[in-house]
Amino acid sequence: MTEITKPSILSGVMELLPEEQIIFEHILEIIRKHFERNAFYPLDTTVLEKAEVLLAKGGGETEKQIYRFEKGSNDIAMRFDLTVPLARYVAQNISAIDFPFRRYQIGKVYRGERKQKGRYREFYQCDVDIVGNEKLHYLNDAEIPAVMDAIFQELNLPKYAFYVNHRGVLNGLLNDLAITKKDETLRILDKRDKIGDEKMKGEWQEIGLSEEQIERLLQYARIEGDNDQVLATLEKLSQNTQFQESLEELKNVVKGMEVCGISRERIRINPSITRGLDYYTGTVYETFIQGHENIGSICSGGRYDNLASFYTTQKLPGVGMSIGLTRLYSTLVAEGLLPIPEIPYADIAVLCFPGAEFYALEIARKLREAGMKTLVQIESGKIGKKMQMLDKKKIPLAVIVGDNEINDQTVALKDMKTGEQNTIPLADLIPTVV
Amino acid sequence: MTEITKPSILSGVMELLPEEQIIFEHILEIIRKHFERNAFYPLDTTVLEKAEVLLAKGGGETEKQIYRFEKGSNDIAMRFDLTVPLARYVAQNISAIDFPFRRYQIGKVYRGERKQKGRYREFYQCDVDIVGNEKLHYLNDAEIPAVMDAIFQELNLPKYAFYVNHRGVLNGLLNDLAITKKDETLRILDKRDKIGDEKMKGEWQEIGLSEEQIERLLQYARIEGDNDQVLATLEKLSQNTQFQESLEELKNVVKGMEVCGISRERIRINPSITRGLDYYTGTVYETFIQGHENIGSICSGGRYDNLASFYTTQKLPGVGMSIGLTRLYSTLVAEGLLPIPEIPYADIAVLCFPGAEFYALEIARKLREAGMKTLVQIESGKIGKKMQMLDKKKIPLAVIVGDNEINDQTVALKDMKTGEQNTIPLADLIPTVV
Repeated sequence: MTEITKPSILSGVMELLPEEQIIFEHILEIIRKHFERNAFYPLDTTVLEKAEVLLAKGGGETEKQIYRFEKGSNDIAMRFDLTVPLARYVAQNISAIDFPFRRYQIGKVYRGERKQKGRYREFYQCDVDIVGNEKLHYLNDAEIPAVMDAIFQELNLPKYAFYVNHRGVLNGLLNDLAITKKDETLRILDKRDKIGDEKMKGEWQEIGLSEEQIERLLQYARIEGDNDQVLATLEKLSQNTQFQESLEELKNVVKGMEVCGISRERIRINPSITRGLDYYTGTVYETFIQGHENIGSICSGGRYDNLASFYTTQKLPGVGMSIGLTRLYSTLVAEGLLPIPEIPYADIAVLCFPGAEFYALEIARKLREAGMKTLVQIESGKIGKKMQMLDKKKIPLAVIVGDNEINDQTVALKDMKTGEQNTIPLADLIPTVV
Repeated sequence: MTEITKPSILSGVMELLPEEQIIFEHILEIIRKHFERNAFYPLDTTVLEKAEVLLAKGGGETEKQIYRFEKGSNDIAMRFDLTVPLARYVAQNISAIDFPFRRYQIGKVYRGERKQKGRYREFYQCDVDIVGNEKLHYLNDAEIPAVMDAIFQELNLPKYAFYVNHRGVLNGLLNDLAITKKDETLRILDKRDKIGDEKMKGEWQEIGLSEEQIERLLQYARIEGDNDQVLATLEKLSQNTQFQESLEELKNVVKGMEVCGISRERIRINPSITRGLDYYTGTVYETFIQGHENIGSICSGGRYDNLASFYTTQKLPGVGMSIGLTRLYSTLVAEGLLPIPEIPYADIAVLCFPGAEFYALEIARKLREAGMKTLVQIESGKIGKKMQMLDKKKIPLAVIVGDNEINDQTVALKDMKTGEQNTIPLADLIPTVV
């Protein structure tokens, strides 16, 4: 007698039941389709990396979370995002790559997070980036959210919007105000939605900002209205060159986003968005579902000046966004925000009575050759139970065959929705159902 | 100045350049299409598993190869194949699954192999299995190689054949010959292609088989001819019940494979194939490319009586096959056996002169909305160099726009093959190219 081990999986990973997996695959397919329609290369970097290469940047929270282990003489780390591997890949293959390098990558990444709701150890990221060599036109920043928008539109996501800002606008303002503690100041600004103006003010006081500096920052943070109004108000806020040039870029990126197909009401210039302090340098994006801002940004990213400074002296500016798909999927399902499409498991099923197995297999072959997703069920068993299974799997058509059908070279064809069943010549089956 | 870490990857992993990756993705897409057309569920088990669950079976070569590490209180192992996770998944979700459970899984698996040509630490497997609960009709064994055949046909693989045998035929014969050292006897038989008859005979003598036993085994191993001849010869070889019943099954499985669409000349009954001694119990398959048998079986599998005996007392018989895609791809490329399809990077490219960026983005949006894979290139740069890039990427059409085209609301449309270029109204572009 074999000893039984209770089958179970780690906490903090997502594994789906077959019916759920079909929906998840459907989502992956939509994402892949749009990435490819927008002419991004599929990239598939290794999951296992040399630890010293993957962690070249070193330090910080990331290193603590990483899965790292030794095997033989190798010090191995599992990728924890798709950006560091992109940087490593581009630097490594720089002479074999055409720039601008447009790549997408859909893959699992790994983090040894402490157990926490919405945090995963193993999860999908869907990344899209355009990387230039030495230079990259800022209007590429319009294409990136546009491909994400096409995806969310096809997924029928409820009302969402891209929140856009520009790090140069922020930096220009800080320079104008002669604020030196930039990172701290921005980190506090970024929390505005959570902590509110009064607390934000208090924290700015604590780090030593003057009343005038705080007043001007508040004025900036409180800018409201539609994008035209926000831009008009911003324009008057500072005459700093960086501020004005960045504002012009932001204006054009927003215009470009509309030209690329994002509907006006889904684009919001939001002066409080700062993101990734040590990384992004230009446009920054977050994406929120209206009324569900609490679940956080579902798709974020921005423009960076230098992708791979740890791997090459070549300057590689780029722009990208990322969907954390595992968290997004599970959150949307949990909140009832994902319109679940009815995806049939197959286009048609072939059932048979004992003795008609070969005939059933032959019919299935014909249907598959004609491009139909075909389930063939040659197990013996009650036909009623089989029909229930087809209903459950939302298969719209059934072919049923037995001795009579073999003799007459016919098939019984049943419409699972209406229940109507007709016997037709085998030769008519393909023209009838395809 | 940032310190530079030389970008590199581990040995024994495959990472492709963009042009290669497109071909690999094309192959993955074909595999996925046929798995789905044959109505297999996509399954996506976790890569990280609880070590004590994944290694329930324990012992052997596998355990030495595994990547296993601790993080916090977790003892974690990376999956080393897709079969053990399938067993764990089915046992774990047995009440939520409809049987027969038809699943495919395409995913990376991980083995800490010692460095060796053709061995990978991280590689793709493409598995397809049908798992029954308590029972599974043996004609399912015909469907499995048929879906693999459809894939290889669409990939235009050179002449290959499925080598088929039945473990019951072998066991029946061994019983008939009163051979007790079954595993050793079969292990020697399985090496016939490599070591030849004389050496095989010697090894059988060494383990103590009698001259008569060896004579009968040789007679069995030497059976040749087309499938009908082999079956006819086999029938007369032993009157053992298991032998005869298994032979009948084998005959029907081969017939079923033909019915399912595998051309006769690609099916070979081969009495020497034994495979997975402690696992397979019925039909066994291997797949060889003619004239390149040395690269080994490119797709193997078989029928098993009990998938998940380590996780459940429920009997789960099944049948499956697996493609080791990373090894297959790299071997086929290395041997020049993969007919490389010309896959254009995009259907059309939109290029622009400075000042026409928004116009270019608008055109790209229209083309994408019409379903065309569209590259838009808004970087400034020499048009000749851009054309070279399109040629290299095999993009068949180019739209070029500048101030004149904006003013006239036209586009210059270039056929990259003929070099012909025409200026047409923007409104005519979609009807012309889609």
